[in-house]
Amino acid sequence: MMKTDVKQKILREGARLVHRKGFHATGIAEVVKAAGVPKGSFYFYFDSKEAFGLELIDTYARVIGESARIYLLDESRGTVERIRGFFGSFVDFLQGNDFRDGCPIGNLCQEMADTSEPFRKKLETVMGTLQLNLADVVSEGQKRGEISTDLDSEATADFLLSGWQGTLLQMKVKKSRESYGAFEALMFDRVLKPV
Amino acid sequence: MMKTDVKQKILREGARLVHRKGFHATGIAEVVKAAGVPKGSFYFYFDSKEAFGLELIDTYARVIGESARIYLLDESRGTVERIRGFFGSFVDFLQGNDFRDGCPIGNLCQEMADTSEPFRKKLETVMGTLQLNLADVVSEGQKRGEISTDLDSEATADFLLSGWQGTLLQMKVKKSRESYGAFEALMFDRVLKPV
Repeated sequence: MMKTDVKQKILREGARLVHRKGFHATGIAEVVKAAGVPKGSFYFYFDSKEAFGLELIDTYARVIGESARIYLLDESRGTVERIRGFFGSFVDFLQGNDFRDGCPIGNLCQEMADTSEPFRKKLETVMGTLQLNLADVVSEGQKRGEISTDLDSEATADFLLSGWQGTLLQMKVKKSRESYGAFEALMFDRVLKPV
Repeated sequence: MMKTDVKQKILREGARLVHRKGFHATGIAEVVKAAGVPKGSFYFYFDSKEAFGLELIDTYARVIGESARIYLLDESRGTVERIRGFFGSFVDFLQGNDFRDGCPIGNLCQEMADTSEPFRKKLETVMGTLQLNLADVVSEGQKRGEISTDLDSEATADFLLSGWQGTLLQMKVKKSRESYGAFEALMFDRVLKPV
């Protein structure tokens, strides 16, 4: 294997395990075993478990960024439909997985924000980028007359993210998409809708 | 000490530690040390760490239920002010604590819902009770003309909980009450407001 392949394998299996089990509960031995690489190779690529965790955040952020690109920047659709597609596609994915695991970034925020300042800062940046992406779509929707113009786009994006993260939490505990139904009805048909 | 005192001490220190560190990261040895009781006494009161965790959920639910009673059932205030007081008082508490820890029930939902079915069921019940309490206030607000009558009270209560839990997550990662500002502006002044 090429060196970069080894690193990518470690990150890929690490991302899967940490998404499922959390960062603390995932052991390095488990990650290298799943990746099928020698244990020593882990410390060749990562100075510490924390350094590995910080690269995992990049891995998750890339996946979310790609989804944001596909849905939020799809100019063939209206702005509300783009936001709906972005969240809805993830709900469909979760439902196929019995609503397990949730959002890998949200999970790490919950688990790590109070424990590690480097994690917290990096997670804050990822959430901030997503908030900016959503705020841009809200602004565009306001120009197009699809979203109420009396909303502050940044506060609305912030509220979209809060509603979304809380909905993920509730779907996880209820094992049902019911809370997403409430989110859709109230967020799209009431909050965003032009008055 | 009376036997019940020992058990209450274990639960009180356990609740504090698990709120701060999470369930998996909190060891039984640490709990009994903090409680100042012999290690053996833990297994006199709890069959397992899981049984202890399930009683912790009751402990947290009692605190939340007490706060719900104080704020949500305060008939001297309008219904929206009651909901605002319920959430706002907790935000004030969190702010005094650098937005650490968040909601003990929300944290356990995140950490345990996929890992332990007894935890998941019990957490779902606690969230369901809070949702019902909120739905009752929404219904009452609708009768009093304080909350828009074209809202479904249960879906609105569900959405209140999602928005709230996500706001807690964002405050934890941003170390700021900014997201609660967005929550207040959009939830109270837009979603609940009579049209």
